[in-house]
Amino acid sequence: MEDGSGDASTRWSISRPSAAAPLAAAGSMSIRAVLDRVFSSLDGSGPLPVLSLGSGDPTASACFRPPPEAEDAVVDALRSRKHNGYSPTVGVLPARRAIASYLSSDLPYQLSPDDIYLTAGCCQAIDVMISVLAQPGSNILLPKPGFPLYEARTTFSNLEARHFNLIPDHGWEADLESVEALADENTVAMVIVNPSNPCGSVYSYDHLAKIAETARKLGIVIIADEVYDHLAFGDKPFIPMGVFADIVPVITLGSISKRWLVPGWRLGWIAMCDRNDVLKKAKVDKLIEDYINITSDPATFIQGAVPQIISNTKEDYFNKILNLLRTSADLCYGKIKETRGITCPHKPEGSMFVMVKLDLSCLDGIQDDLDFCCRLAKEKSVIVLPGSALGMKDWIRITFAMDVPTLENALERIKSFCQRHAKLEA
Amino acid sequence: MEDGSGDASTRWSISRPSAAAPLAAAGSMSIRAVLDRVFSSLDGSGPLPVLSLGSGDPTASACFRPPPEAEDAVVDALRSRKHNGYSPTVGVLPARRAIASYLSSDLPYQLSPDDIYLTAGCCQAIDVMISVLAQPGSNILLPKPGFPLYEARTTFSNLEARHFNLIPDHGWEADLESVEALADENTVAMVIVNPSNPCGSVYSYDHLAKIAETARKLGIVIIADEVYDHLAFGDKPFIPMGVFADIVPVITLGSISKRWLVPGWRLGWIAMCDRNDVLKKAKVDKLIEDYINITSDPATFIQGAVPQIISNTKEDYFNKILNLLRTSADLCYGKIKETRGITCPHKPEGSMFVMVKLDLSCLDGIQDDLDFCCRLAKEKSVIVLPGSALGMKDWIRITFAMDVPTLENALERIKSFCQRHAKLEA
Repeated sequence: MEDGSGDASTRWSISRPSAAAPLAAAGSMSIRAVLDRVFSSLDGSGPLPVLSLGSGDPTASACFRPPPEAEDAVVDALRSRKHNGYSPTVGVLPARRAIASYLSSDLPYQLSPDDIYLTAGCCQAIDVMISVLAQPGSNILLPKPGFPLYEARTTFSNLEARHFNLIPDHGWEADLESVEALADENTVAMVIVNPSNPCGSVYSYDHLAKIAETARKLGIVIIADEVYDHLAFGDKPFIPMGVFADIVPVITLGSISKRWLVPGWRLGWIAMCDRNDVLKKAKVDKLIEDYINITSDPATFIQGAVPQIISNTKEDYFNKILNLLRTSADLCYGKIKETRGITCPHKPEGSMFVMVKLDLSCLDGIQDDLDFCCRLAKEKSVIVLPGSALGMKDWIRITFAMDVPTLENALERIKSFCQRHAKLEA
Repeated sequence: MEDGSGDASTRWSISRPSAAAPLAAAGSMSIRAVLDRVFSSLDGSGPLPVLSLGSGDPTASACFRPPPEAEDAVVDALRSRKHNGYSPTVGVLPARRAIASYLSSDLPYQLSPDDIYLTAGCCQAIDVMISVLAQPGSNILLPKPGFPLYEARTTFSNLEARHFNLIPDHGWEADLESVEALADENTVAMVIVNPSNPCGSVYSYDHLAKIAETARKLGIVIIADEVYDHLAFGDKPFIPMGVFADIVPVITLGSISKRWLVPGWRLGWIAMCDRNDVLKKAKVDKLIEDYINITSDPATFIQGAVPQIISNTKEDYFNKILNLLRTSADLCYGKIKETRGITCPHKPEGSMFVMVKLDLSCLDGIQDDLDFCCRLAKEKSVIVLPGSALGMKDWIRITFAMDVPTLENALERIKSFCQRHAKLEA
């Protein structure tokens, strides 16, 4: 008997054709799912150690370690035995107070702890905001290229995603004309990721002001994904979107994952920069709480450590990490320049990534970006992310946040891969 | 101008009448949301310290501390600096291996690490399973009384919940006749919580076998919520539903939250007890992975600590906790017996809770269970959970997992409250 139940007439209702298509589609969009495909192309018997430039997780490199102060803060919070129980829905107050103060130091006004909701990393912050904003018939404007979790969550929530372009030759600035063309009365929000994953760009004050004005004109809220806040090592400083919250309501998403180099600690936040009470009047605060009420929380003792993590980490630490990122980004940009078949339109100045364009006319027999990545994995044991995962066919995303020898080695292998596949010139 | 934008014609599309009713309804169902209402009745100026018998979190009592071995395991995992990065979608392998082995020690077969998915507490495990099973037109059978998160997630996911009764006078066993009457070809699963939150009951081998046979006959999967696994201190031992997985596919949900007394650590699991590959053929494993791919994970270093948490915690610790729970449960049951106006149909033998029936005919001017709880909070500064949050109007749920002096004090206050409101006999 097929189901081994001892009763041939038994039918398991769970085996009926599933209507779970949106879930399967959403799940296959994640960076992890796409990278799994690339990893599966690795030649296990090859002589080269695997080098991954695929994800935004530099913790494998010893130089990208979290500050000891942060580690101590978590141990102290755990050892205090005050944080073993459930946390309040919105997170523990001292952590929300510390984050409000941390964010306010870059703003012309003060956020209150009541504006802050703790989440299990920025991923859960995205989950919360998309779930809260999803309404039948509504749409949301997402950048292209963008972070796939936004696509995945909108697909799962049946919220329509509309894509505006980021312009590679203008420092990956948002094409605000296309934003205006896409928006209608059913557009609830637009998403901005700054510093940019995947582009490595940092927006100027002027461009952010233009984004704010556009959103105000269209009557749409801005979701400002600032998970890479302060990781700006070029000429432009990091400016939070919340600076413009007098013009437009801003919902800022952030995390300790990137600046403190602890993506596995799963501690993020949502900050409502709601200077004119637009969000409160629409009860967005209440809906966020409703949703967090039926999801899981970040670990309570990690919440308990947040005030010390923020106050005890020294500026020297942040500067050291910025210097490392700058060196790696420069190295990466330089190596790409000397590699025929790939080009980088904009030198990275923030985050941990750079978008690289494939010139398939120079590369013999490479079908597309996924083919490029799978072959590179198979032949050179180097992992990079196919741009199609980010909405950019025939581009790739390279993570440069790693120690210099490893990065150099990986980029050399990419160069050698491109040389090997170079089309002979006519 | 209302929105302060400098442009009176600006309309914020987010302010339109929201279609977020299912979310708001789901959020208001959570235990946290209901307890918040009860807490808001407290008389802040009253002389009595607040005693909460409201939630399943005993960590406020010093005697219900986690084992030092578990704390050490987390510190060691953090200090190793091997677990600061992202984890794989399904969780780190050593933790999945340790949990598979831990669960298999009570089963007549071995689970594989591939059967285990790590989640951020049992709450996320519930979120995952409801989201995966939700299909248009489907329904799920939930126990009444039950754990409100199941209601909330089914409401949010537009999955129809149908309720079968647990019978107070038969040790809160499931009414399997009503299960058969409720199920149809669109029923995907039934949920069993054993040891029971909120009833404090533990199911016998025979009753579990009958549940398995009923589910097999109906062709529905069993979701076995065993977050209180092994917290059985009466005559009946804890028997996992997975023992019957040759008869019916069982999806077991669990966590270290309760047995190790660390609900704030947020580490749980889903275990597929799928002896006849029914779930695999229906691609439930793949859908779980799809969903976990687009949600947040438990903190990686807590995952990393799981093998040591499980292997280093001594039997003595578990026995000590069981003895404490037995003493508290006995005390609670005895005190309720001597209190006129409330009755307890079944002596608690597991978990941390007991369901108590209000006899409103003996209580003057008390409208219902919510009124009882709010007045008790206001007059006596004692918090208990209204049964209506669990589908049981005019019942309350009492948590007895706390130190004896506090519990005694709280139960004395409840007794005094009932005496004060006693109807004069004719």
